[in-house]
Amino acid sequence: MTTDELKVILDEIAAGRTAPAEAMERLASSGIDDLGFARLDTDRTRRTGMAEVIFAPGKTEEQLAAIVARCLERSDTVLVTRLPAERAAPLLEHHPQLIYNLAGRVLSTPPPPPSCPPVAVVSAGTSDQGVAEEAAAVLEHLGHPVDRVPDVGVAGIHRLFSVLERLRKAHVLVVAAGMEGALPSVVAGLVDRPVVAVPTSVGYGASFGGVAALLGMLNSCAAGIGVVNIDNGFGAATLVHRIAPGDGERS
Amino acid sequence: MTTDELKVILDEIAAGRTAPAEAMERLASSGIDDLGFARLDTDRTRRTGMAEVIFAPGKTEEQLAAIVARCLERSDTVLVTRLPAERAAPLLEHHPQLIYNLAGRVLSTPPPPPSCPPVAVVSAGTSDQGVAEEAAAVLEHLGHPVDRVPDVGVAGIHRLFSVLERLRKAHVLVVAAGMEGALPSVVAGLVDRPVVAVPTSVGYGASFGGVAALLGMLNSCAAGIGVVNIDNGFGAATLVHRIAPGDGERS
Amino acid sequence: MTTDELKVILDEIAAGRTAPAEAMERLASSGIDDLGFARLDTDRTRRTGMAEVIFAPGKTEEQLAAIVARCLERSDTVLVTRLPAERAAPLLEHHPQLIYNLAGRVLSTPPPPPSCPPVAVVSAGTSDQGVAEEAAAVLEHLGHPVDRVPDVGVAGIHRLFSVLERLRKAHVLVVAAGMEGALPSVVAGLVDRPVVAVPTSVGYGASFGGVAALLGMLNSCAAGIGVVNIDNGFGAATLVHRIAPGDGERS
Amino acid sequence: MTTDELKVILDEIAAGRTAPAEAMERLASSGIDDLGFARLDTDRTRRTGMAEVIFAPGKTEEQLAAIVARCLERSDTVLVTRLPAERAAPLLEHHPQLIYNLAGRVLSTPPPPPSCPPVAVVSAGTSDQGVAEEAAAVLEHLGHPVDRVPDVGVAGIHRLFSVLERLRKAHVLVVAAGMEGALPSVVAGLVDRPVVAVPTSVGYGASFGGVAALLGMLNSCAAGIGVVNIDNGFGAATLVHRIAPGDGERS
Amino acid sequence: MTTDELKVILDEIAAGRTAPAEAMERLASSGIDDLGFARLDTDRTRRTGMAEVIFAPGKTEEQLAAIVARCLERSDTVLVTRLPAERAAPLLEHHPQLIYNLAGRVLSTPPPPPSCPPVAVVSAGTSDQGVAEEAAAVLEHLGHPVDRVPDVGVAGIHRLFSVLERLRKAHVLVVAAGMEGALPSVVAGLVDRPVVAVPTSVGYGASFGGVAALLGMLNSCAAGIGVVNIDNGFGAATLVHRIAPGDGERS
Amino acid sequence: MTTDELKVILDEIAAGRTAPAEAMERLASSGIDDLGFARLDTDRTRRTGMAEVIFAPGKTEEQLAAIVARCLERSDTVLVTRLPAERAAPLLEHHPQLIYNLAGRVLSTPPPPPSCPPVAVVSAGTSDQGVAEEAAAVLEHLGHPVDRVPDVGVAGIHRLFSVLERLRKAHVLVVAAGMEGALPSVVAGLVDRPVVAVPTSVGYGASFGGVAALLGMLNSCAAGIGVVNIDNGFGAATLVHRIAPGDGERS
Amino acid sequence: MTTDELKVILDEIAAGRTAPAEAMERLASSGIDDLGFARLDTDRTRRTGMAEVIFAPGKTEEQLAAIVARCLERSDTVLVTRLPAERAAPLLEHHPQLIYNLAGRVLSTPPPPPSCPPVAVVSAGTSDQGVAEEAAAVLEHLGHPVDRVPDVGVAGIHRLFSVLERLRKAHVLVVAAGMEGALPSVVAGLVDRPVVAVPTSVGYGASFGGVAALLGMLNSCAAGIGVVNIDNGFGAATLVHRIAPGDGERS
Amino acid sequence: MTTDELKVILDEIAAGRTAPAEAMERLASSGIDDLGFARLDTDRTRRTGMAEVIFAPGKTEEQLAAIVARCLERSDTVLVTRLPAERAAPLLEHHPQLIYNLAGRVLSTPPPPPSCPPVAVVSAGTSDQGVAEEAAAVLEHLGHPVDRVPDVGVAGIHRLFSVLERLRKAHVLVVAAGMEGALPSVVAGLVDRPVVAVPTSVGYGASFGGVAALLGMLNSCAAGIGVVNIDNGFGAATLVHRIAPGDGERS
Repeated sequence: MTTDELKVILDEIAAGRTAPAEAMERLASSGIDDLGFARLDTDRTRRTGMAEVIFAPGKTEEQLAAIVARCLERSDTVLVTRLPAERAAPLLEHHPQLIYNLAGRVLSTPPPPPSCPPVAVVSAGTSDQGVAEEAAAVLEHLGHPVDRVPDVGVAGIHRLFSVLERLRKAHVLVVAAGMEGALPSVVAGLVDRPVVAVPTSVGYGASFGGVAALLGMLNSCAAGIGVVNIDNGFGAATLVHRIAPGDGERS
Repeated sequence: MTTDELKVILDEIAAGRTAPAEAMERLASSGIDDLGFARLDTDRTRRTGMAEVIFAPGKTEEQLAAIVARCLERSDTVLVTRLPAERAAPLLEHHPQLIYNLAGRVLSTPPPPPSCPPVAVVSAGTSDQGVAEEAAAVLEHLGHPVDRVPDVGVAGIHRLFSVLERLRKAHVLVVAAGMEGALPSVVAGLVDRPVVAVPTSVGYGASFGGVAALLGMLNSCAAGIGVVNIDNGFGAATLVHRIAPGDGERS
Repeated sequence: MTTDELKVILDEIAAGRTAPAEAMERLASSGIDDLGFARLDTDRTRRTGMAEVIFAPGKTEEQLAAIVARCLERSDTVLVTRLPAERAAPLLEHHPQLIYNLAGRVLSTPPPPPSCPPVAVVSAGTSDQGVAEEAAAVLEHLGHPVDRVPDVGVAGIHRLFSVLERLRKAHVLVVAAGMEGALPSVVAGLVDRPVVAVPTSVGYGASFGGVAALLGMLNSCAAGIGVVNIDNGFGAATLVHRIAPGDGERS
Repeated sequence: MTTDELKVILDEIAAGRTAPAEAMERLASSGIDDLGFARLDTDRTRRTGMAEVIFAPGKTEEQLAAIVARCLERSDTVLVTRLPAERAAPLLEHHPQLIYNLAGRVLSTPPPPPSCPPVAVVSAGTSDQGVAEEAAAVLEHLGHPVDRVPDVGVAGIHRLFSVLERLRKAHVLVVAAGMEGALPSVVAGLVDRPVVAVPTSVGYGASFGGVAALLGMLNSCAAGIGVVNIDNGFGAATLVHRIAPGDGERS
Repeated sequence: MTTDELKVILDEIAAGRTAPAEAMERLASSGIDDLGFARLDTDRTRRTGMAEVIFAPGKTEEQLAAIVARCLERSDTVLVTRLPAERAAPLLEHHPQLIYNLAGRVLSTPPPPPSCPPVAVVSAGTSDQGVAEEAAAVLEHLGHPVDRVPDVGVAGIHRLFSVLERLRKAHVLVVAAGMEGALPSVVAGLVDRPVVAVPTSVGYGASFGGVAALLGMLNSCAAGIGVVNIDNGFGAATLVHRIAPGDGERS
Repeated sequence: MTTDELKVILDEIAAGRTAPAEAMERLASSGIDDLGFARLDTDRTRRTGMAEVIFAPGKTEEQLAAIVARCLERSDTVLVTRLPAERAAPLLEHHPQLIYNLAGRVLSTPPPPPSCPPVAVVSAGTSDQGVAEEAAAVLEHLGHPVDRVPDVGVAGIHRLFSVLERLRKAHVLVVAAGMEGALPSVVAGLVDRPVVAVPTSVGYGASFGGVAALLGMLNSCAAGIGVVNIDNGFGAATLVHRIAPGDGERS
Repeated sequence: MTTDELKVILDEIAAGRTAPAEAMERLASSGIDDLGFARLDTDRTRRTGMAEVIFAPGKTEEQLAAIVARCLERSDTVLVTRLPAERAAPLLEHHPQLIYNLAGRVLSTPPPPPSCPPVAVVSAGTSDQGVAEEAAAVLEHLGHPVDRVPDVGVAGIHRLFSVLERLRKAHVLVVAAGMEGALPSVVAGLVDRPVVAVPTSVGYGASFGGVAALLGMLNSCAAGIGVVNIDNGFGAATLVHRIAPGDGERS
Repeated sequence: MTTDELKVILDEIAAGRTAPAEAMERLASSGIDDLGFARLDTDRTRRTGMAEVIFAPGKTEEQLAAIVARCLERSDTVLVTRLPAERAAPLLEHHPQLIYNLAGRVLSTPPPPPSCPPVAVVSAGTSDQGVAEEAAAVLEHLGHPVDRVPDVGVAGIHRLFSVLERLRKAHVLVVAAGMEGALPSVVAGLVDRPVVAVPTSVGYGASFGGVAALLGMLNSCAAGIGVVNIDNGFGAATLVHRIAPGDGERS
């Protein structure tokens, strides 16, 4: 609830159009859709520019189905992340208008035609593409055109130079890398746009499930990098969306 | 060196205006000012929108003085971070045009008059203000108007609501917090702009020098947050500058 | 054995009603029921206000069955935690008077009618509810009325304000949260009753199985919080029971 | 601000006694005393039963003096923690009514005469007494009679049994221990009241600054224990105060 | 090879009874039985008082069978640890003289009749008994009489006092505990014999697979404790065997 | 691209034999074979002395098959690591000229006849041999004769002395060890050639998946040791190949 | 208090020689000397074979002086550890009969003439000798003859073989090492007596204050090793004393 | 002692030229110079190609002086590392033939004229040069010509390309970097010689004293890298010396 909205309510009370008790109820329940086991935040798009997103793990199939149905009823948009294909199948059958991104494990309503400047989604190796694809799928849902740039890890740095012009055209860059996580440092030294760094859990031995890459990105000697959680392609996409709002959920 | 610049050089060779040997030398030394003990990256503003910054720790006074002098010679701007007052004094005496931010430990040329939208620099407690001030000083140097919002930690959350309108007016928000580092999560749930989260090393016991706050920010349940290193106010400012370029170093 | 009980025994010896050897045996075996592979602490309710509880993992089905049977023989109450449905089934068949809480994985004798002030069991997200339900089931077994308040995470903080009056009515509050674990800090700043914080292992990437939430809770900037182990809904309930003893095991 | 207070304001608007604009200002600034560099939470006692406490580290002497003076102006109570003797001296000179606890490094207004049931503050070794004394000083400030029980570590467990009756008389027990941190487990198995466990940083080698004790307490096999941060005697006292409110700040 | 044996060889050379070349070969191959994929240390009993033991994980069934057969050929004793029942079955069929301890997962030749002073193997909870049993089985193989004392964890410390005389009769004590690992501290404060502490991986949440117990034992405030690796019942037994050599492998 | 090659291109432009636009295309795409999902680094042998290697985990069977086929088309050599037998089978069927090392999980074209000085691959225990064999298989593929020296752990150090002459004949030594990882320290003190230390994840309890061995090797008191990642037999082999180039990929 | 002593008291009551109230007082205060700030465990020698030892850090000079004086009053033996020379000086002046070990920082009454079998105190490098000397000083205080064997680290393993006969003559061996901590593994493979391993904090980089050495020792592939805390020479000595009791405190 | 030397001794015994007792003494004391507090390994150059080096920390000035004097007596070479200027001064006064490298804190006899192929010592930033200089000083002492390449961090990667030809001319490359430690990965992808990676403790926040750089280097996606301990310039030089032996200590 904004100050403006509060002002409206207070003015209505002053004008006698709204009783104090009714105003208090409106204040208390505003922006919540209570399903019993969950409280949907129906006010989130207004506050933060993006609707609440459904994180699939830990929810039963019944809970998922109920939340998806309610979202589609209330607005005409829904986004579910970390959803394996076998869990997506019944939802797709029930709601044939939805689309599913297999590599990114994202279920959503179809994206609007993109109209804003492109986002580059860069990944260091083939194994990082699941995470990169989660970011790309969420970005497309939010109305961003995505330029996917896979397999440009620093061990063969000429591969990165061969795509430099594409990188420099992007409005924002998501860079996903596992192992030593050095790619965002190198990229951020070559462009002048924000770099959203996503450490991935790709690696073995002392990569400790992505900790090595995470530390590498946090300690980057290059400027202009914001880091998100390990394997958090979704989080990267939401940060990009705030930097360069697309058309997906704003209209 | 951009593709365009390379194209120019190749065209010059084709036209016989530049000999291959001379072209190779230009390619090799382009964008470097070699001081012997350091190689200044004179090309960085063009590539990344911001000049190379001088990180004071680990440099001798002689090295610092030489680098500062050279920067002022080459361009008319310089920025030194993590510089204690006693190390700043001789540099200020030598270069009276410089200004020094005591709390943020930042030495720089005076900022241009700000002309772009404001950045909010929010901090959870009084003890986090050194880090917040580093971010603010760098932002001002880069031409950003800064709205400082101190002491709005989550234990008395009404303090945050009392400044909500100011937060919502900011183009980007830097949020610095130590201890459990929960403030960015709450802020990011209330605004629709990017939140740059800076964990600080404030705390004791199991805060582990800022690790607790860092983990809290990386694991935020809110969307739209980019995290930088512990106590890295400078890094937060450079990310903001790429999101919302100011007037400080671009002209 | 209390000082009073010791005094009684010594007086009996002094009076010649008990021989020293017999007294020594009573002293040695008092409060233990030795099953060979386990030593039941039959004195625990008297000492600590709550009977020994059976932690299911690591025990064979035979051991579980034997302990449950012995508990029901000795007293008319039993409580088994971390018991999956398939392990609970044979015990329920054998002892039809028992009840089983599926989400909380708790098997117990039915709770007494609650008669003491209510305990709020608050959880940040849908995925935290297994842990919250373990706390709730143990609390109900111990005679506490429970007010369950799910899905009020800090990313949409108005959801928390909408239930503020319920939180303020609780005698004690259990607050379960994963990810950054910020909910207890915010809750403890809004109420004047003890907050028992339970970090959950919900999260991914750098949540490290609940460590991020645990550190967040230990480093809370709010006062009045006691922390228990990760996912330890049971431990939270026993702390609450000492703060506000219910009717479950005291009579 | 409570629902009741909000109701009063809305009723005043409805009755025409308060203009909407004035109401909004009251809503925004309620419960904050803005000193510029700090925002005192003047509403905290009402909300949480205890006034905001001043954590000394990281504040300049000027800031400390200003905050202490303002607290004494607004209410007649103040509490400063982690304050070394040399920083306390000027404040004591200026405000002769204050008292200073050297071992606990706590500066405060004198406590009221205690009138509620006693709290036991138990410590494992002589070296843990600084932390224990911080808890004791804060408890006394809040109106709790304190029974100090030092040096009863588990390596000579008969020392603990010799004070068992005192432990059993306490309403709540604070137990501070470093090294392996086993004392809370043993104590919690012998009493039926809540145990607030405080790990201390006492130890060497693999105690890792209190981590070993912290882990020991979180993993206790005994029920009824709430853990606070390493060396956080203050936090323990505030939890106790919520469990068994004293007379110190309520009146 | 001892100095005495070397002396014998040198004397033989001096006396012309052994050629230098033959002596060198004896020096090089002494004490090794080379199976190609493994080099059995046939000299270990002489050097260290105990034959080489076979650690089953990571060996193929063929390798295991070959090593067991060779051991039985060379001496009449064998000891295999960490061997699940299904891997033990074919070896037992082939070598019916062997015995298998199911709980401890130990396969061995039958122990000699014990003739040395007893070793107490104490465990904190029912779940620690697998580790305790590994220690007990190895000790019995080595000729030590074992007094098993299960389920005497510190949360009900009177259970420990009820067996105090048995503990005091032991020549050495092995104490296995998970969770906070406090039992060795308490035991070592009550007896005057060496305590070999074995942390177990029993626990959940912040026990981190036995790390909490390990740290608790290393930081014990009691004297006279030697710690072995997590779950390393075997290692505990070998340390005991050096302290109080049994009859198992010396004859 | 080397300076020499660049010089050639510039000279060609100057001579009018190459148009600037064509030169730029050659510069951009040089050394990359773009398969869409992957960018093969076809220039790597020239730059680094060894072709790009295929790390199997995280790639689909289709991707693997495509990459292997393309490698065989382009050059007549291929090397795939971390490939389980069941994934190797279809590739072997399709390309009968390939060979598969089961223990090392390595698929490759047959090695050339070795002609350079031997490399010793030393391992501490039977369980370390999988990692050792990965190193050996890659070394043989690269043209190095390998002397395998298994099972010479430090607990029976005479086993090491019995092979000392073999160790001293090696040009470089790869030493793989788990548990405490002490073997490289002892070996490096006995030879004058480089020791490449490979920590393995063999161990239990506080070995933490190879961290104990890794730390042991990094902190070695002996000189002349280079450490690679946990279980990284492949990485060890590539370091050896740079120290003592074989005939495998150079011709 | 032993069972025998308890029996005596009960018999006295039965015989009417002791009143129950007096018996209870004796039971409660037995074995404690209460100095107010500390509770000396005067029963410890009887229970554990060794008097309570005074750990100097964290005690004020007044507390130290009082405890030392009381110990000398009660018995004629005292032992203070971790006592820097400047803190020892006033105590030595006051009690000229005491002796001080500078390298080991141990203050004590002079040791009795040694009469039991020798203990070897082995250290890897010159820098480990402070820790080794703490162990040696405590051992001598307890009546053990000590054979100091410094500087036999594994990088020059022939140094170890040159002292092998001395090692084999020892009844127990204390082995102190920093860095990779490999020395106990090698020693334990060469002798048949118990090895007490002491990791030291000597090292740099990734030794993490002794953690690398600690992990190395816990994960030793050799049998017969008990580990104590980092730098804990005192703890090693007390374990040795239980294994091979000297004459120091028993008489 | 080599097999050849042993053969000589055995032959002498067989020939009657050496008595067995004398031979045993020679075997035992061979290669050790016992100073009481230290055992110099006088055999190390023969065994490992490099004399024992003196690590200054933890040694008293007397010990240092004695060891340096003895080294100069025995051979005409000495090398002391981690020696601050104030500790070096008296040694330089006493032995005017020694030279001291201030930045590298290395004291040594003057190096021989270099005659082998050059080693590149590359560092990422100005602050890494202390570590780089330690490596360079030791390399020069060992007879290697060193090409110092400072300040070529990956944030301005064109600086690296400008020195590529120098890097490619090096026989071996030492690459020191702090922060994210990405430089070795990029360098190893550009050259075909061994890369010795040295993580430095340069950085702040979550660099954890060099751990981030260490993990980055261990997890490098590039081949041909051997890692040494944090800040261990000395260790890097000794590994290089084994790869490409110089003239310093061999003659």
